[in-house]
Amino acid sequence: MAESKDYDLIVIGGGPAGYAAAIRAGQLGKKVACVEMESAGGTCLNWGCIPTKALLKSAELYLKMKKADEFGISAGEITFDFAKVMERSRGVAGQMAKGIEFLFKKNKVDYIRGKGQVSAPGMVSIVEGKDMGQFLKAKNILIATGCKMRRIPGLEVDGERVMTSREALANKKLPKSIVIVGAGAIGVEFAYFYNAFGTDVTLVEMLPNVLPIEDNEISKTLERSFEKQGIKIRTGTKCENFQVGKDTVKLDLVKGGEKEEIEAEVVLSAIGVVANIEGVLAANVKVALDRDYVKVGDDYQTNVKGIYAAGDIIGPPWLAHIATFEAVQAVNGMFGHGKPKRVGNFPGCTYCQPQVSSTGLTEQAAKEKKLDYKVGKFPFTASGKAVASGAAEGFVKVITDKKTGEIYGAHIIGAEATELIAEYGFAMDLEATVEDIHHTIHAHPTLSEAVMEAAAASLGEAIHI
Amino acid sequence: MAESKDYDLIVIGGGPAGYAAAIRAGQLGKKVACVEMESAGGTCLNWGCIPTKALLKSAELYLKMKKADEFGISAGEITFDFAKVMERSRGVAGQMAKGIEFLFKKNKVDYIRGKGQVSAPGMVSIVEGKDMGQFLKAKNILIATGCKMRRIPGLEVDGERVMTSREALANKKLPKSIVIVGAGAIGVEFAYFYNAFGTDVTLVEMLPNVLPIEDNEISKTLERSFEKQGIKIRTGTKCENFQVGKDTVKLDLVKGGEKEEIEAEVVLSAIGVVANIEGVLAANVKVALDRDYVKVGDDYQTNVKGIYAAGDIIGPPWLAHIATFEAVQAVNGMFGHGKPKRVGNFPGCTYCQPQVSSTGLTEQAAKEKKLDYKVGKFPFTASGKAVASGAAEGFVKVITDKKTGEIYGAHIIGAEATELIAEYGFAMDLEATVEDIHHTIHAHPTLSEAVMEAAAASLGEAIHI
Repeated sequence: MAESKDYDLIVIGGGPAGYAAAIRAGQLGKKVACVEMESAGGTCLNWGCIPTKALLKSAELYLKMKKADEFGISAGEITFDFAKVMERSRGVAGQMAKGIEFLFKKNKVDYIRGKGQVSAPGMVSIVEGKDMGQFLKAKNILIATGCKMRRIPGLEVDGERVMTSREALANKKLPKSIVIVGAGAIGVEFAYFYNAFGTDVTLVEMLPNVLPIEDNEISKTLERSFEKQGIKIRTGTKCENFQVGKDTVKLDLVKGGEKEEIEAEVVLSAIGVVANIEGVLAANVKVALDRDYVKVGDDYQTNVKGIYAAGDIIGPPWLAHIATFEAVQAVNGMFGHGKPKRVGNFPGCTYCQPQVSSTGLTEQAAKEKKLDYKVGKFPFTASGKAVASGAAEGFVKVITDKKTGEIYGAHIIGAEATELIAEYGFAMDLEATVEDIHHTIHAHPTLSEAVMEAAAASLGEAIHI
Repeated sequence: MAESKDYDLIVIGGGPAGYAAAIRAGQLGKKVACVEMESAGGTCLNWGCIPTKALLKSAELYLKMKKADEFGISAGEITFDFAKVMERSRGVAGQMAKGIEFLFKKNKVDYIRGKGQVSAPGMVSIVEGKDMGQFLKAKNILIATGCKMRRIPGLEVDGERVMTSREALANKKLPKSIVIVGAGAIGVEFAYFYNAFGTDVTLVEMLPNVLPIEDNEISKTLERSFEKQGIKIRTGTKCENFQVGKDTVKLDLVKGGEKEEIEAEVVLSAIGVVANIEGVLAANVKVALDRDYVKVGDDYQTNVKGIYAAGDIIGPPWLAHIATFEAVQAVNGMFGHGKPKRVGNFPGCTYCQPQVSSTGLTEQAAKEKKLDYKVGKFPFTASGKAVASGAAEGFVKVITDKKTGEIYGAHIIGAEATELIAEYGFAMDLEATVEDIHHTIHAHPTLSEAVMEAAAASLGEAIHI
């Protein structure tokens, strides 16, 4: 039998939950191992958040350059090298993954390469990969294996005609046409990206709106913007009867009773995620699951003492920043560094242009809950900075308690929306009111003034509308 | 004698203090007039904050386009039409000025064109301009005449060889070379702008650092960045012996005992501002001044009952967002809408690239005050969003009380620094701690995570460094 090592903590999975947990435990002076079967940083860093942001920057720049004339700048023919766009994205992911490996070393985290399996409480065996055969022992185990892309039933992902975001991120050939199935953040970002470079994009969503979890008004605004940009949007629509041919895929778009047959070079499936649970627990390890997600208590511990879980593997919302938060809290708790917090308020972001971000309740949710709310709105057309930047699309919308000014939710569509949401998130965490935001001096001219003016608008005191 | 009209409030000056005061009074249902001798929006909107931001966007885009190859995008020869760059900036200013006029109408503000003079308490006469000869009466008068550019003694501003920012904003010819005297925000922004378009720029500052009011570490970082960009920086240096010729200006740069003669097509004076007080008060109106600034009490009222002042005219810091804040507070107070607040914490921004922003104490000030502080720093090289965006220059720095985590000050240099500072400003207003920021879930991947990680770093708990 191979050697066995003793740790304070073994983390299975090196994504935003796993690597953060390992680094945090290292900071606390604990002996820790992080087991990762692919690349440090996990899906987020290698095949998700980070490489897509690199792609989107190229797309943005390309579109901006085509409109540079407005800014007094002209260029000869503007072209792109799609392979290079994709390679830059891989390079960024690679660079950040190296960064995580550096942080592992700095924090004395043993980085184990392979697939980790909890073979018994306190015991992890490496069952595949480079370090296969190793056995690790620890008082604490954190399962942070995350999720992977859900596949469309009966439709094989071949990486050529049918892809998930993962294959799309590795694909150096720009498709002439694409059908994107699912208009959540991932589907929407790829729609923006491919459309920017000239692909004929059809974005299909089963629910009534794109970004269905966002505020309806935001979703509708994005739909109009996307349609103007040339993206075909089919909401309330199902995809059926996929026929994968040599060069194209045919499928039916079904809305109500109506069928529309379409054909595209590529189908991108962006219909959500499923838990990476297969093989993580040996048969004798009776960790309780809820469907495929690991059940945890308030301290992120499972029903088995010493086995914890955090991140996507404990269920929705599947967001990297939540994974990191949970993992750090779990580690703090297991080593007596304060009572672990559960996730309360959190932001969600989509990085197309215009960007979308939100935190807290949508207006439709406030209505459903029969809250006595009011809305403050401020359009970027009234923001000097937005107009000067040539980015006056969109608005800030805040939903507040009519009496107290407590913030129920905030929703932003427009330039830098994903940065601007931070202030509302912070305000909600502190239980601050719209008055507090309104009375804080915001720098002029900035887009952040729109955050303030929306708060002021909810009080009838916005100056610039 | 001409007709005389009765108002609840007459505002003299239509800039960020004046127009905001007038609109706010309108919101409160008051009868209000705003007297402006040039364009609604004042210097900020017409000849300051707003048109410069438009110019800077063109400069940024031009520089980005020249590096588009990194992003997989290529263009033929990239050129610019400087006159068009300037015209766009004028267009943006014009559009925003029209917006203010619209807001005047919406809020039933009488917009009076001309130079207003307080001829007696409760009485304003229009002594120049389109509406010259009108007399206005009101219970309350708010002086919001702001400031204008300070001129270098003995050096005439001719708009060709010698300019202030005002003339530069109207100048459609790109100078081959320029000496910018003064490296505050305005000097620094013009240095970035002209250098981007190929002008040979020398930026001269009498004090030891560019942006002398910023944290030393930020100033030094900006200096290094500017030098890399090709800007010549002369700090601790005086300009003497200007000789204005037909095509160039010669002058001496004096540092210590050393003299360096230089010659440039244009000298831009950016050495601060002086109060617009001339002719604002008739001789018999004994409003107390401090040098040329109007003295006010906590309610923004001068020593003369019913005469108030707000904005640049009451003295430093000369910032549009402070002017607006003061003006709104003054109006709230005069009409019994809450006790007027004085300015506490406020942000300052410089919109070159990398951007600079700050709020609260610099490290040097914390040291001088002998505070028991610590520093949290987070570099953008460790931010996935910054790297993916190709904008990894700079850092976030927060200065906190070593024991309590109270935030003394925050300083940001890098992409979107001017937006990111809002969260720290809000935190300081709420007397929140770095722990509060650290424990708030920030969206991944965003630059705002760097705000959080700097807070975490001050506690030794940053994950990504």
